Amino acid sequence: MKFCSACGSADIALSVPEGDHRERYVCGACKTVHYKNPLIVCGVVPVYGDKVMLCKRGIEPRYGKWTLPAGFMENKESVEEGAQRELFEESQATVTLGPLLAVLSVPYISQVHMMYVGQMSEPTYAVTPESTEINLYRESEIPWDELAFRTVKVTLEHYFACRKAGAFVVKCDSLS
Amino acid sequence: MKFCSACGSADIALSVPEGDHRERYVCGACKTVHYKNPLIVCGVVPVYGDKVMLCKRGIEPRYGKWTLPAGFMENKESVEEGAQRELFEESQATVTLGPLLAVLSVPYISQVHMMYVGQMSEPTYAVTPESTEINLYRESEIPWDELAFRTVKVTLEHYFACRKAGAFVVKCDSLS
Repeated sequence: MKFCSACGSADIALSVPEGDHRERYVCGACKTVHYKNPLIVCGVVPVYGDKVMLCKRGIEPRYGKWTLPAGFMENKESVEEGAQRELFEESQATVTLGPLLAVLSVPYISQVHMMYVGQMSEPTYAVTPESTEINLYRESEIPWDELAFRTVKVTLEHYFACRKAGAFVVKCDSLS
Repeated sequence: MKFCSACGSADIALSVPEGDHRERYVCGACKTVHYKNPLIVCGVVPVYGDKVMLCKRGIEPRYGKWTLPAGFMENKESVEEGAQRELFEESQATVTLGPLLAVLSVPYISQVHMMYVGQMSEPTYAVTPESTEINLYRESEIPWDELAFRTVKVTLEHYFACRKAGAFVVKCDSLS
């Protein structure tokens, strides 16, 4: 942040506002405090029978690696709506949304990943500008060494563990 | 947003960037796209024996109403760290953090409230600049008509329902 988005002044500096306890970008001219907060990434483990749908990323970061469909939650939607929107944007697939499966904080990049189970009624999907290839994988077929993000690996491992246990619980964890 | 925080230009307008599907604030001068995303509010249901701790708000909004300790998650922390930080800032209390209890989307204000159960080992707390009064309440004593936010009411109702059922599950809901 180099300029104040409220008044346009370049007199922007990090300081601790009165009554606060953290450094913020504060405008010296109009005194506006500019907050930066974590982003939510929401997504789905799309399930068809004993298989899980993965998408090969057609965009950076991690172009060419495999991922669960997920992306940044938008204003004016619920987490569940965001997860289903991201699923459709990346794969044209739809699901009946099931339980919340994982809440994974990633503090070093100030993100929280929230992943749901989703049941596909048909194996219907299509590549999109965001995904160059889409496949349904059994657990033994998952390309574990070609996954795009650690949150994807942790979510998939937890999904298969829950499926074996016959009960889905939410995994809350923080990745360092 | 009236000025670009990257270049200071006043040539800021809502438009749909190429490859996007939503209106964003885009700078006509330097082409920076400025995203706005939902905020996470994290907090705790602090439990001591059969009682729950509530705080009387000493700040706006909802000054003088009763709330569960909660507040905006900060960058570079986990949801769990944020919940415990907010608890301490508002009440000087500490807990052993228990299960995630509620994930409540509030789309009309672009917030997601994430509430945990927390066990207090001692009934130790103190008023702070944010809380003018703090009390431990049995279920029958909760000031239901004097609660600050609907998310607090929904979370407390779910907490007591889980306690009666003898099992804690995450309530995921969207408040409209």
